[in-house]
Amino acid sequence: MPQATQAMLATHPQRESAAFNMQALTACIEACFECAQVCTSCADACLGEQEHLMHLVRCIRLNLDCADICTATGRVVTRLTQADPAVLRAQLQACVAACQACGDECEMHAREMNMEHCRICAESCRRCEQACQQLLGGMNA
Amino acid sequence: MPQATQAMLATHPQRESAAFNMQALTACIEACFECAQVCTSCADACLGEQEHLMHLVRCIRLNLDCADICTATGRVVTRLTQADPAVLRAQLQACVAACQACGDECEMHAREMNMEHCRICAESCRRCEQACQQLLGGMNA
Amino acid sequence: MPQATQAMLATHPQRESAAFNMQALTACIEACFECAQVCTSCADACLGEQEHLMHLVRCIRLNLDCADICTATGRVVTRLTQADPAVLRAQLQACVAACQACGDECEMHAREMNMEHCRICAESCRRCEQACQQLLGGMNA
Amino acid sequence: MPQATQAMLATHPQRESAAFNMQALTACIEACFECAQVCTSCADACLGEQEHLMHLVRCIRLNLDCADICTATGRVVTRLTQADPAVLRAQLQACVAACQACGDECEMHAREMNMEHCRICAESCRRCEQACQQLLGGMNA
Repeated sequence: MPQATQAMLATHPQRESAAFNMQALTACIEACFECAQVCTSCADACLGEQEHLMHLVRCIRLNLDCADICTATGRVVTRLTQADPAVLRAQLQACVAACQACGDECEMHAREMNMEHCRICAESCRRCEQACQQLLGGMNA
Repeated sequence: MPQATQAMLATHPQRESAAFNMQALTACIEACFECAQVCTSCADACLGEQEHLMHLVRCIRLNLDCADICTATGRVVTRLTQADPAVLRAQLQACVAACQACGDECEMHAREMNMEHCRICAESCRRCEQACQQLLGGMNA
Repeated sequence: MPQATQAMLATHPQRESAAFNMQALTACIEACFECAQVCTSCADACLGEQEHLMHLVRCIRLNLDCADICTATGRVVTRLTQADPAVLRAQLQACVAACQACGDECEMHAREMNMEHCRICAESCRRCEQACQQLLGGMNA
Repeated sequence: MPQATQAMLATHPQRESAAFNMQALTACIEACFECAQVCTSCADACLGEQEHLMHLVRCIRLNLDCADICTATGRVVTRLTQADPAVLRAQLQACVAACQACGDECEMHAREMNMEHCRICAESCRRCEQACQQLLGGMNA
């Protein structure tokens, strides 16, 4: 995806009007789509953890929320044409909140239950949270 | 949808733990799904407005953002099991921002260009914005 | 939603070019969005069924698939401008398959485990399956 | 994304039960998420092509369909727990149809109008179409 995402932005007719640093924007788009995929996968892996399933209910729920929110955020930040800063900012903040909650929960299961898929998912949530924060930081500047 | 949404909530095993007034929650879920559908339809109707298309670019873009954000919000508020208040609040606020921006743009096209689909879409955005605000008001209380 | 969906179609600039009977199209759009919401709700209700959770894993998985497929289908059939019949037909067929699989699974839990949310969800899947079949029937004619 | 997608599958408790070759599955998941992102970007780039906009209406519409269908397909194929072959097959076939229609349209604009974003998008659609075909081929075997 990295190459395609970047190539699309480089050929976009409205790239000059974008409010963002292109490198930070590329990183945020990639992180949102990656996190949406990884959270969908973690929810499904948790659902397949037969004897541990009861302990993973909150994890599944937060994975599903985070996947939906990252999907919406990834689409919104992908669009450069006639962007609305207030909408971008609010959706990026929602993505930060979802990635924090899901990352915390997954980190706990990685640490306490040695769940490997939760460890990988927590890392993906952290990357996405930071990429959104960086874009938000650039907007306020 | 109203009956099915309400019937699902009434039979949900975790309905007692919900942080929300059930009537306000039902209204918000319905408004989010309706607004997602109507904004998808308005983007497509604008795209079919041959001679006016050039003036509707910002409207299409905001319709697409609003459809994506309402879809994610509708899914997140539908879930009662192990909800995270910070995630709910941030996503509801993003939905308010998207509905305001899209509602304002559509209202302008309804008034100035007599676009009927934009008028109906603006009403749907206002309903969704208010339903989200009402849920947020209940959370802060 | 019924009124808004119908009103949007009635004011769409490309409504004459639509390959569909408008009443069947309205019913299909509504059924897809309703089923997406109800399946999201059923997955979450199953996730909250503490002692029965182990028996509902397949139900949750099919609910999640059906919600995603109905969301995509509802968006695709909402669009009238420059529709591609092969894409419409294939996506409607996928929606029929998803609603059948999910409807069968939910019906079984309604019957054998007396799960009320599964009973309501099965009805929503059946409505959506039939609405998609009716649209497909009109296309082949 | 490649590493994260692959790492998630390698730690999934139900990976033995998957009906797919893991390499083909990883490629398909990645291609679906990439194509969803690239089509969202191409729809937005077309929307920003001021003087050419009128000629890109069908391209935008097919981009939007393809983005929605690839998003749903990417989520469905990500899930290994209790998969339903009929649902998988039908959704993969819908994804093939969407990628073919969108790829053909984008290829035409790349060739005739020298649209670079359409050229990149056409390549992404071809990759996704082939990855879905390969997964389908493995299922029928």
